[in-house]
Parts: sequence; structure tokens; C-alpha cells
Amino acid sequence: MVDIATRVWNHRWKIDPIVRSLIDTDFYKLLMCQSVFRRKPEAQVTFSLINRTTSIPLARLIDEGELREQLDHIRSLSLSRGESTWMRGNTFYGKRQMFTPGFMDWFEALRLPPYELERKGDQYELTFEGSWPEVMLWEIPALAVLMELRGRAVLDTMDRFELQILYARAMTKLWEKVEVLRGIDGLRIADFGTRRRHSFLWQDWCVQAMQEGLGSAFTGTSNCLIAKNRDMEAIGTNAHELPMVYSALARDDESLRRAPYDVLSDWHEEHEGNLRIILPDTYGTEGFLEGAPDWLAGWTGIRIDSGDPAKGAERAIAWWKARGEDPREKLVIFSDGLDVEKIGELHAQFAGRVRVSFGWGTLLTNDFRGLVAGDRLAPFSLVCKAVAADGHPTVKLSDNPEKAMGPAAEVERYKRVFGVGAQERLEVVV
Amino acid sequence: MVDIATRVWNHRWKIDPIVRSLIDTDFYKLLMCQSVFRRKPEAQVTFSLINRTTSIPLARLIDEGELREQLDHIRSLSLSRGESTWMRGNTFYGKRQMFTPGFMDWFEALRLPPYELERKGDQYELTFEGSWPEVMLWEIPALAVLMELRGRAVLDTMDRFELQILYARAMTKLWEKVEVLRGIDGLRIADFGTRRRHSFLWQDWCVQAMQEGLGSAFTGTSNCLIAKNRDMEAIGTNAHELPMVYSALARDDESLRRAPYDVLSDWHEEHEGNLRIILPDTYGTEGFLEGAPDWLAGWTGIRIDSGDPAKGAERAIAWWKARGEDPREKLVIFSDGLDVEKIGELHAQFAGRVRVSFGWGTLLTNDFRGLVAGDRLAPFSLVCKAVAADGHPTVKLSDNPEKAMGPAAEVERYKRVFGVGAQERLEVVV
Repeated sequence: MVDIATRVWNHRWKIDPIVRSLIDTDFYKLLMCQSVFRRKPEAQVTFSLINRTTSIPLARLIDEGELREQLDHIRSLSLSRGESTWMRGNTFYGKRQMFTPGFMDWFEALRLPPYELERKGDQYELTFEGSWPEVMLWEIPALAVLMELRGRAVLDTMDRFELQILYARAMTKLWEKVEVLRGIDGLRIADFGTRRRHSFLWQDWCVQAMQEGLGSAFTGTSNCLIAKNRDMEAIGTNAHELPMVYSALARDDESLRRAPYDVLSDWHEEHEGNLRIILPDTYGTEGFLEGAPDWLAGWTGIRIDSGDPAKGAERAIAWWKARGEDPREKLVIFSDGLDVEKIGELHAQFAGRVRVSFGWGTLLTNDFRGLVAGDRLAPFSLVCKAVAADGHPTVKLSDNPEKAMGPAAEVERYKRVFGVGAQERLEVVV
Repeated sequence: MVDIATRVWNHRWKIDPIVRSLIDTDFYKLLMCQSVFRRKPEAQVTFSLINRTTSIPLARLIDEGELREQLDHIRSLSLSRGESTWMRGNTFYGKRQMFTPGFMDWFEALRLPPYELERKGDQYELTFEGSWPEVMLWEIPALAVLMELRGRAVLDTMDRFELQILYARAMTKLWEKVEVLRGIDGLRIADFGTRRRHSFLWQDWCVQAMQEGLGSAFTGTSNCLIAKNRDMEAIGTNAHELPMVYSALARDDESLRRAPYDVLSDWHEEHEGNLRIILPDTYGTEGFLEGAPDWLAGWTGIRIDSGDPAKGAERAIAWWKARGEDPREKLVIFSDGLDVEKIGELHAQFAGRVRVSFGWGTLLTNDFRGLVAGDRLAPFSLVCKAVAADGHPTVKLSDNPEKAMGPAAEVERYKRVFGVGAQERLEVVV
């Protein structure tokens, strides 16, 4: 067991790389990367880091030189032999050779492409441009670096014992959550907290605490490196980036309308079982489900990642029934803004009616709220998204207008094409 | 920084000695030992372990074989070269060569004498017999072994993460106390918690937390091994065992009456300055001070170790004034049943009127109250005392009849000789 406080203390004395492995990333990134590598290897995309919590002046908290050092270090990484062996030889979602030899050959040779970093006022503008399968792998490490450097800026002001007490309190806080979750019969929950974790070591500790406290109710982690090191299941399917880029690449309204289904049609060819999970909210869940082809109703489940989660799940249940499917055989994965109370509520409401599962993110791996003066370690809303593809801006609407992204004119066009009307506005916690 | 939870976890896997050094003991034991070695080397004494908290069935909690292993290990210890160098070369209370070459030669050759262990119902009867300077050194390690084995019996039932959370909570609890103490201007406080510590590693952590949190307000530790390892002051003067054994060796009432003063007369020849601290309560503070010779009023200070501490300090102040001394130049050391609230109160009442100092024991190094179900790690009242000298029973009265010890007839005789009347009965917490 690592003594985290000591480790953080040592951060002050030398360069301490935050991301030390190309598989210190979410499993779905690798799945999507393989899909993109096969189908859209030539697409040129731009990813951009966006701090939604503008009250946190990242550029004042984080030294630019230190940030560059961390990003440069990530560019020096390549897949290690053990990592490659794991990806080639391990069983993922019950399947051998999930990653094809062709993809693995490419991945083994990969170094991440250059980044562009510029200070704009109190924020950094950090962008990545290049071929989609390469650039997309920047998302998670870029987020992890920014989150952890911001944390270090605060931790650097604390004494050694203050640090130890900080982690003692954070551990106690998480363990109390684990004890609550223990009381939920039939719970299934995974760690989805890589991107906004407090730090790598802390995520690793949280994952171990979940495994120790919840046993088989803890189904695994989205973090490939931790899954490998701890011999756990790597968890994840796909994300908004696929429909966003497919849509930006569409050359007219009709192909735009079809784009989100094209994504899943490609996915359908590649994956089966528990990897066939619909992410319906990119351009509004309601219209997406209405317009969906029947074969999509045959998929295993759905992931609810924005909007009111209970309403989203009810909508999915109604849709499955309307398409002649039995919801009790379907999987509903909740993954948006979860904490233990909400997990308990949703489980109580849906267990038995569908197969319920949770992807628990920021408030698993970064709930340092209330632990330091001025709450300077509270998590905040940082994202890294595809903002353009082949020169066209991307758009995301989601089921919460607070999470919408893209130029106003394009947002209006997408709303029209996807028939999105009035939406409920919900606060984005993390 | 040691990861205590991991360490405790490892206890299960192999024999893990609780006491690993002959100087893992209180400093005053070594001072007294040297004094006894010089003046009463032939006295034959019996020390006996007494569990005042009979509700804790030590013999059911602690395996006899394990206890014997730990005690046998202590008998195998001898002073290491580094320990001897430290004792010979270090400055204690501003003095070089506190320990004479003659004493050090003897101490370097010492192995602790045999013990006698017998199970009596749910308790152990553990006694040590032999020459006083040898037997007296059993007291602290014997207490530490029993306290820690009882703790381990509880810890062995806990999972790895439960252990980590336990220590996280205990650390948080102590740190909150440190933060309270930080607010007391002019505080001077030392660790007196060796004998009833939760464990060696925990005491070591507590001492470091005090040093980090309080800086120079933390004056040192009574534990010689920790003082040596952490380059701190070793703190302590003398204890009840001196007047108790001197008194038991007295052959008539008149020499009995003189015995407590003989102790301090011997001490006066050996020590000066901050080591001249009166411990007045062995047979009642009031009578002791009234009958004290004038040279004792010239001593540096007093230690209040039983009875109502504020009353004890007021009594000392009145006594100094009556003897023409200026109390503002005198040191009052409180060392009985302290926790932060009481420390704050006493400091507020006496700071400025005398020089105030605190020897904080059990609730510094063993406050695990409320941290496990059934409070099975709460500290309890275990003592190891001289019960006989040259075949005569010892007696202790103290300023609290709850702490009195000895055969009833002898207690009555001592009360008569020392003129002790009615006493206030106070609960013994730890």
C-alpha cells in the first residue's frame, strides 16, 4: 500500500510524471481508437481543452513550464512490452483478441502528436491537431495532467502532516461512501473516474478500496493501467466523440441525420454483447430513439450520460417496450454526476425493471470537497473534446443545454435536423 | 513516513516484536535506575502487573504463547552500540555525561531478569522479582506489550482497508487535537505516552505529529528510543516507585515518615535545575508539603499526578509563597489524565502565575475511543508497580483513593504516619 502523503510530498523535490503510460487512459478510448483506425484513419480532427469552471484560473495556478514538461513527457511515452502483451493477450468483455494485430502494430509504434499551448488570460488554450486515431488519445492524459497539476499547486502549500491528514480524511470519506454502497443489494458499479481524478495514486487507492469493500459488486475500472496492474476488468464502450466527428464529417443535412446511426452501425459490425451499449444523447435522446432503426432496439443496453437520469431510463424502457423488447433483459448504465445518494435512488427505482449498472466518476476519484480551506481541491468541470473534423466544427447538444457545445449557427442547424425542442436545464456539478 | 495500516496487517504473517530496544522506555526509568543502581543495588523488589479495568479480559484476548514470545524477546535484548553511544554522549537536560561510565558498563551488560506468568481467570498475573535496578526496567516494556497485544487481538479481526481507515480516523482525531493545542499561546507540552500507547509505531507517529504541529511548544518525548531516532529531547524526572520502595524498606514509623524526603535528598545530590521536580502525592500532597524541609521549596518545580490538578497546583503555589519562594519562577508539570480541554483549562488558569508544562500520556498515544464497534480499542487502566521490597509490601496512597495500592492494614498505617485524612474520590479514566 503506497503512502500517498509521502509520495505527494516528494513531488516537490523532482519532476514527477503524472502520466507514465499510454494505457493510463480509459478503455473506451482504445476501443474507439481501433474503430477509428479502421474506418476513418485519414480524418483530421482538432481536440481542445475547455475549462467549464472559469472561476478556477488554471493559468495562474499552474506554471506553464511545468505543464509543458508533463505534456512533453507524455509525448515521449510508447507502449511497453508488458502493456502490449496485456492488450494482445487479455480477455476483454469475454472476448480474446479484442485488439487486432494490425491495430496493435500501429499502437506499438505510436507516439502522441504535438500539442499547441497558449495562455489566454487566466486560462490555457490547449489544442491537439492531426489524424483522428492519434489525436483522440490525448484527451484523457491531457485532462489528468491539468487536474493533477491544479491539485499539486494546492498541495504544495501544505505541510507534510497536513498532507497526511488530508489523505486520511479523504480515505475516511470514500470509505464511508463504500459502506453506504455495501448496503445496496445487487449493486453493480465500475470506476469511470480517470479523466477527473485527483491523481493517479489516488485513483488507484480508490479502486482498491472499492474492490475490497464491494467485492464482486465492483465490476472493474475504466483505467487500463490500473485494470492491468490490479488484474481487474477494463470497462467502457464508446463516447460522444464518435457521433460528433461522424456528424461534422457529414456533407449535408441528410447524411448528418444519419451520422449517429452510422456510428452504431459500424460498432454493430465490430462488437457484440455488453459492448453494444447505445449512447443516445449526443443530439437529444428523444429524437434519437424515435428515429432509430429496429436493430438498435436489439442492442444490450443504453448509457444515460446527461439530463435527468431517471427520466432518461424511463424513456429507454418505454422505447424498448414499444419496439417489442423486454426491458428486464436490458442494461441501463448511469454515468453522469453520480454520488452515493443518487446511486441508491436510481438503483431503488430501476433494479428488477432493467439490469442496472453504474459508471462512477469524479465523486469517486476526486471528492476532496470540504477538505481544505477555501475548498481549493474541489473537483471542477474540465473537458477535452473534438471541436473540428476536416475543418468543420463539431456540435454536441446532449440532454442538458448546459452541456451543449459548438458554434451557435451550427447548434441551431443540428437542433433543426435532429428535431430537438425545449430541454430541461440542469446544473453541471463535475 | 511508515504506512501503519500495512505494518499492522503484516503482524499477522510473522512474529513481530513489540519492544525492540531496551531504551524503548521512559527516560525517567533510566534516571531512576541509575540512582537505584548507586544507592540500593541490593534491594530485592517485586513488580506486578495490575489491570485496573477488570472488564477487559486480557487472558481471553491475548494468547499466552504469544505473550510469552514477546516477553522472551525482551529478555533477549541488550543495549546496542548506537544506543549506548547516545546515552553516553548525548546532552540530557543540558547536562553532559548524565549517565556515569560505571552505570553504562552495567547497563551494557544487562539482560532483563526472568518473569513469572500465570493465568488467573480472565486475567494474567505477571510478576518480576529480583534486584531493584534490573526488575524496575520491566515496567514499561511489560505495559507496552500487554497494551499492544490487546490492540492486535482487535486489529486481527479487521480487513486491510478497515485498518487503513481506522488509522486515517485516528490520525485525523489526533491532528484535530493538535490544532486545538496550537491555539494555546505559550504552551509547553511533552509526550508521556509510552506505557499505554496503542503501539510503538503509533506513538512514533503521534510524536512526529506533535512536533510538526506545535514546533517548539512540543518539548520532547519521554520515550528514549524515539527521542534518539527523532533527535528530540528525552523528558522525565522521577516516579512514585522511589518513595514506595524506600518506604517499604523503612524499618519503623519514624524512618517511614522520613523515607519520601530521603528519596529527594538523594535526588538533590544527583540532579539540579529542571530535574529537581517534586512528586508530592505518593502519601498525600498536603502532609508531604507541610512536613517538607526548606531546601525542597528551593527546587525547580512540582509534578501533579493525582487528585484535582487545579487544587494541587493552587496548593503548591500557596506552599511556595509560605516558604518565601516566587511561584512565577516555579515549574508546574501536569501529567494525570489529560486531554486537550483539560490542558486548555489548566493553562488558562495557571499561565503567568507559574511556569506551566504538560506531560500528555494515554490520550495522546492511545485515543482510539469510538473508532471501532464496541469500542474494543479504547485505552484502559493497566499499571505495573513495585508491590514489595525486601519482603515488605509497598503502599501508595496518592491524592485519589481510587489510585491507592497496598494491603489494607499497611494502607491504614501509612495514612496514620503521613497524617492523611479524607480524600476526594475521582474516577480514573486511563
